[in-house]
Amino acid sequence: MTYTVQIKVMPLKELLDPQGKAVMGGLDNLGLTGVEDVRVGKHISLQINAASPDAARAIAEEASKKLLSNAVMEYFEIEVN
Amino acid sequence: MTYTVQIKVMPLKELLDPQGKAVMGGLDNLGLTGVEDVRVGKHISLQINAASPDAARAIAEEASKKLLSNAVMEYFEIEVN
Repeated sequence: MTYTVQIKVMPLKELLDPQGKAVMGGLDNLGLTGVEDVRVGKHISLQINAASPDAARAIAEEASKKLLSNAVMEYFEIEVN
Repeated sequence: MTYTVQIKVMPLKELLDPQGKAVMGGLDNLGLTGVEDVRVGKHISLQINAASPDAARAIAEEASKKLLSNAVMEYFEIEVN
């Protein structure tokens, strides 16, 4: 069966996020108030053909660790539908 | 109150996604099988101080339209927690 897997890769909470800071500056310039923090990361959507949701999650986890995220700077979250 | 708002910005389904294709090639090289399609987009996480979840969503929607996404190439989805 084909599962849709969503992977969210975000900068670690302990680290500064210059892209997020730039977005905050941009929102300020647009006059949008109320935004207190912005973090910018990647969203990867995969179609995985696997025997079970767990098997699909295992493939996504390996992909995240080996290719999609950098453990020094980022963490990832996986959601299987 | 402060709401956590997640915005997902993805390339339109009708368009090619070269970054996704590159990731698919990379996964192939790693020997990960079963991945049939990959789309790569942005994930933006905001902390918004607003009177209600609806107000927070309105701010996020304006930010998405004016700054975070390009309607010609991308669509966005907003989730308020």
